[in-house]
Amino acid sequence: MSTAWTSRYALRTKGITSSQIRELLKVTQRPGMISFGGGLPAPDVFPVQRFEQACHKVLSEQASLALQYGETEGYAPLRELIASNMARYGIKAKLENVLIASGSQQALDLIGKLFINRGDRVLVEAPTYLGALQAFNVYGAEYESVPIDDNGLRTDLLEKPLRSGPKFMYVLPNFQNPAGTTLSEERRHELVLLADRYGIPIVEDDPYGQLRYEGEHLRSLVVLDRENLRRDNGYSIGNVIYLSTFSKTLAPGLRLGWIVAPPEVIGKLAQLKQGADLHTSTFTQFVAYEVARDGFLDQHVKLIRQIYRQRRDVMLQALQEFFPPEVTWTHPQGGLFLWVTLPEGLDMKAVFQSALEQNVAFVPGDSFYAHDGRLDRGHEGSRHMRLNFSNAAPEQIREGVRRLAAAVTSQLRGARLGSELPLGV
Amino acid sequence: MSTAWTSRYALRTKGITSSQIRELLKVTQRPGMISFGGGLPAPDVFPVQRFEQACHKVLSEQASLALQYGETEGYAPLRELIASNMARYGIKAKLENVLIASGSQQALDLIGKLFINRGDRVLVEAPTYLGALQAFNVYGAEYESVPIDDNGLRTDLLEKPLRSGPKFMYVLPNFQNPAGTTLSEERRHELVLLADRYGIPIVEDDPYGQLRYEGEHLRSLVVLDRENLRRDNGYSIGNVIYLSTFSKTLAPGLRLGWIVAPPEVIGKLAQLKQGADLHTSTFTQFVAYEVARDGFLDQHVKLIRQIYRQRRDVMLQALQEFFPPEVTWTHPQGGLFLWVTLPEGLDMKAVFQSALEQNVAFVPGDSFYAHDGRLDRGHEGSRHMRLNFSNAAPEQIREGVRRLAAAVTSQLRGARLGSELPLGV
Repeated sequence: MSTAWTSRYALRTKGITSSQIRELLKVTQRPGMISFGGGLPAPDVFPVQRFEQACHKVLSEQASLALQYGETEGYAPLRELIASNMARYGIKAKLENVLIASGSQQALDLIGKLFINRGDRVLVEAPTYLGALQAFNVYGAEYESVPIDDNGLRTDLLEKPLRSGPKFMYVLPNFQNPAGTTLSEERRHELVLLADRYGIPIVEDDPYGQLRYEGEHLRSLVVLDRENLRRDNGYSIGNVIYLSTFSKTLAPGLRLGWIVAPPEVIGKLAQLKQGADLHTSTFTQFVAYEVARDGFLDQHVKLIRQIYRQRRDVMLQALQEFFPPEVTWTHPQGGLFLWVTLPEGLDMKAVFQSALEQNVAFVPGDSFYAHDGRLDRGHEGSRHMRLNFSNAAPEQIREGVRRLAAAVTSQLRGARLGSELPLGV
Repeated sequence: MSTAWTSRYALRTKGITSSQIRELLKVTQRPGMISFGGGLPAPDVFPVQRFEQACHKVLSEQASLALQYGETEGYAPLRELIASNMARYGIKAKLENVLIASGSQQALDLIGKLFINRGDRVLVEAPTYLGALQAFNVYGAEYESVPIDDNGLRTDLLEKPLRSGPKFMYVLPNFQNPAGTTLSEERRHELVLLADRYGIPIVEDDPYGQLRYEGEHLRSLVVLDRENLRRDNGYSIGNVIYLSTFSKTLAPGLRLGWIVAPPEVIGKLAQLKQGADLHTSTFTQFVAYEVARDGFLDQHVKLIRQIYRQRRDVMLQALQEFFPPEVTWTHPQGGLFLWVTLPEGLDMKAVFQSALEQNVAFVPGDSFYAHDGRLDRGHEGSRHMRLNFSNAAPEQIREGVRRLAAAVTSQLRGARLGSELPLGV
């Protein structure tokens, strides 16, 4: 069907197709399906009772503010709470450095809107967060992909792409989505120094930083930027814009994230946010503040860490137990995902189909690579699977990995068989 | 202060300055201030008890869905409820025609993103809703302004601008923001026929349609488009995209609006929405559904109509009583605003300052005109004030109009005096 509208799409829709993950989420609602597909928190960790109390308190004491229009920058007590929580991780932010966004996905959209002109290049990790690519694509971003390894972004490969002048770098240092890897301390220092030397700022996306299951917390890029470079301008933000969210620590259904940036940048982002949605729901902000306050958030994060660490361990053990030795995977120190690498020569589409037939789902790796016209995206992505371990219960994780291993093994067998067949068959 | 970021703003920030209304909202929080400035609902009409019950029900029965990630298109039962509510106004929409947006401000942003390339022209009313201009400006829209009168958009002036091929028309047919005027039935037919003849689609923004205080409901453009042109494709949407919101009927703090459009357009908008904020808060959608269902919304809208009609009448009577005869104003049949026209030669900045000194606020008219380089915006806008009558209590409305009349009268006296003084003084 065609209408007066369909001939009128802007350039901005070029290359926009329905995301694989979005379509996948529909399949994964099939009964009996075990999904390692989405990045969904475990529903059983939502602090429901605390939410009930918070809603009751907000509605009985502050309904006329909580249901009314609010400030574009966000509810001030929530911004203060965020600033004081971040201070414990060394991030010195004042109220004026914090903008509440409708999820950190909106933070990415606003950053794209503020900084990307059609044809501007953004330096990204390969692989990287699909949602960032979707947010930046709309503004006509081009990409420069730099590979990661077990220690995160390969900073030894950065100089050349930095010299070519990308608009900014987009980096996930902690328990990266999709690979689950963490940028090492040494590379964090290098990255910040290189960014400063070449004058290329950094967007540091940190949705999972608080969800560390082993090892010591590593200082954020926004903190190192200040310490290394002695940017002492009252708050610690100069070359790095920092993003985080309540989606993994409280509930994604709130759609509450935040941006930490210099006040001048926050001011511009707020102006764009005003045109985008006026402000984030005052009601969810008031409720989140009541839920998180008085130390509840910290206490709750401890519980989440405990539950997710166990799920990660169950998944790692099941992979070890069921997967053939040709298959490898990352060992995430935190977060929600691990990244499986299959032997070359497997047809990932066939693996995916076979997995769905076994009622287990994952996201094929190729979704997480930017099209930058140089990296052999198809080939690189086609060997990987992103597995989420936060959403399914431990016994399901084990069963899901068993099914997945069966799917992979049957494809491996097929591939071996295929390679033994004479040509032409 | 300057950082690595501030030299990197995209073209998109050109011409973006902090909105007058946003700054104004800060002043109006001064104690003792009576504000006719914002478009805020009366806080005393929020159905707080019903919200409490809804939150309790959602959290005790559906927390694991209501706090989790959700579908980009929105919560299906809420979309169904919206469709069935609209059906009573003759708008035949199916589930696939409805996209939930984070307030109708986001609807405007997504429409701008989908349709506007830099330099595209949008046909708007003069005056028009400021937030639409803000949303479209970011995408580089240019404007073609067509004046309104007491019967809304001057359809007799449309042919020439339509012939020049704008991308679409943006129209508020009911109780327009800012002017409070309503597009007459005759002009609605004309507008729909002209749009069809010239192939220029219409965005119909209808945030206030249900808030009619006198006269009969007039059919929406989206309905007439189907009836006049016999577009019978199962749903009634062809040439018109229709927008509305719960902000004026339930609570703006929820940030819940919706878009009605052909399925293909909804699909594209959903893809853009996914990159913009993944989806609107599932929690607020579940709560709004529980609040609105079982006929509550209708019953509540009746109450709002009653309260706002009274406030409108108090304002109209106070204007009659206190304002000098040179001043005129519109008689809105519904909505939240009326539009005051002052005699020529008054300095609106001085009136505004004088009003603030008297502790009463309004929005000066020039904010509501698009810069299209042809309309003499400064002059046209400078004679008008937008007054909101929904937010302040009746006794405050009367007192506020009295203060405003004093401010206007003192400026009028000054202007008369000024014109009698010899040149050079």
